[in-house]
Amino acid sequence: MTVAGVGEFGLIDRVTARLTYGKSCLLGPGDDAAVVAAPDRRVVASTDVLVEGRHFRRDWSTARDVGHRAAAANLADIAAMGATPTALLVALCMPADLDTAWAEELADGLGAEAALVGASVVGGDMSASPTLTIAVTALGDLADRPPVVRSGARPGDVVALAGRTGWAAAGYTVLSRGFRTPRLLVEAFRRPEVPYPAGPEAAGLGATAMIDVSDGLLADLGHVAKASRVAVDLRRDAFEVPRQMRDAAQALGVDPYSWILTGGDDHALAATFPPAVALPERWRPIGRVTEGAGVTVDGVPYAGPVGWDHFRRAE
Amino acid sequence: MTVAGVGEFGLIDRVTARLTYGKSCLLGPGDDAAVVAAPDRRVVASTDVLVEGRHFRRDWSTARDVGHRAAAANLADIAAMGATPTALLVALCMPADLDTAWAEELADGLGAEAALVGASVVGGDMSASPTLTIAVTALGDLADRPPVVRSGARPGDVVALAGRTGWAAAGYTVLSRGFRTPRLLVEAFRRPEVPYPAGPEAAGLGATAMIDVSDGLLADLGHVAKASRVAVDLRRDAFEVPRQMRDAAQALGVDPYSWILTGGDDHALAATFPPAVALPERWRPIGRVTEGAGVTVDGVPYAGPVGWDHFRRAE
Repeated sequence: MTVAGVGEFGLIDRVTARLTYGKSCLLGPGDDAAVVAAPDRRVVASTDVLVEGRHFRRDWSTARDVGHRAAAANLADIAAMGATPTALLVALCMPADLDTAWAEELADGLGAEAALVGASVVGGDMSASPTLTIAVTALGDLADRPPVVRSGARPGDVVALAGRTGWAAAGYTVLSRGFRTPRLLVEAFRRPEVPYPAGPEAAGLGATAMIDVSDGLLADLGHVAKASRVAVDLRRDAFEVPRQMRDAAQALGVDPYSWILTGGDDHALAATFPPAVALPERWRPIGRVTEGAGVTVDGVPYAGPVGWDHFRRAE
Repeated sequence: MTVAGVGEFGLIDRVTARLTYGKSCLLGPGDDAAVVAAPDRRVVASTDVLVEGRHFRRDWSTARDVGHRAAAANLADIAAMGATPTALLVALCMPADLDTAWAEELADGLGAEAALVGASVVGGDMSASPTLTIAVTALGDLADRPPVVRSGARPGDVVALAGRTGWAAAGYTVLSRGFRTPRLLVEAFRRPEVPYPAGPEAAGLGATAMIDVSDGLLADLGHVAKASRVAVDLRRDAFEVPRQMRDAAQALGVDPYSWILTGGDDHALAATFPPAVALPERWRPIGRVTEGAGVTVDGVPYAGPVGWDHFRRAE
């Protein structure tokens, strides 16, 4: 059955019937708007859009995978402020001949990823469109802490990373060369593993700046350096190249550090901490904040492109 | 200059430089997420998406018009809960060859419409896409009142309308027949005039149910009737056909009541009130809630389609 066949309201009924609601959802789908708890008297809000052919391919990822990734991209932005996600709203634009099962499984993926952090899909909109497009807005709560912004890094701070980088980029390269294995890398591209609790944890530890690594580690730390008017220097030896990644890099003729340092889409969290902070195991030191500008690796500018531009990236 | 020419970050810089921020915006664009005031400890949230060729046409509306309408569609949903809008987030998908001026003027329209209610554009995302698409999320505050939902209408309640209906549909018909006048109707399609303050006002007066009229009056009151398990009967003589609309209807061979009763996109607010409530002038009584199901006009079911389905509507 196509989405045009069941119609807008029929599809909304089918999708909302599959959703479950977290405790922050005070009023879910079915009215003009949802109502979400904001105990902190502030709400953190972020929007990310995924466009078919640019951010995902239906022959590379299942609908459920795309749902997980669309949710993860947004939930990670909330975590990167030091907040806990509470809700997602989803605008879904679909070709009229799309199978309803695709939309339903997308909703399953969105809901399952949100449930990892106690959040839920509380509302949205649907429209026909020639281009399959998923725009997600995530909301979150700061629990009475100030948001951790990009502009607070200070010379002397430690740069630390929670989560992994390079895995999704490696999976993307594998898929784009026509392979389906190594499975571990391909799965990392399909469904990022985001260290959500590390966000509020970093805020509690006194992180001075934090960012979701979505454009690539060097590019995103570049945003932090620019906003904070500081320089960041990373230590290459802080990054171990996992065996599967090393083997794939060798087979594909790629420098694995290009994945680790410039690949996006794993949604790791990078943060800066005052040097006195005792970092828990989840936060791995990878470099230092210094006076100056820009990002270097072992004191040297990185040779090569450092991240994606979503208007220039090849289709 | 095209959006691909200035790139994602260049365009974000250009657009955010044009925005101004309301008092609810505690942290605006430029970080992983925005922070918005939610003094009520709850946030009202709604998402609406506009797709080129389906919800707007670039040869019918300027970018600024589209911005006004995209914002209005969302802000009206917030008002229809009895809330005051605080913020918008915007996901904008654009063909790479789109002129940056279009995106900048869109932002001007979004910002200007939001400013009518003291709200502002606090964040968003941009991507290239073959299909020009604007997904907007609006947030709002309930000021310690319960949300006015669709399910609270009771037999005996008065049905009342704030704002106008049929104007946007008339303008749409005029444009789709290849005309550019009457200007008043065409302008109503391009930029709806939404009675935003009527939403919180109705909540304060004790409205039992409320809805934003976006699908058409009969269709939307049908949603209220269904959710409330009641019937709604409208009085045709409660609707005066304005002269410009009557003249256009005659020239185009259309029943003007089909515009008034089934046309969407004016974003009027329809609400039900206990009969004892003294309605201010802005809220015009148009019918009654009774026992039963469905919506009738002068006791008789309406002959003809009552609203849009966004998957079936002709391109």
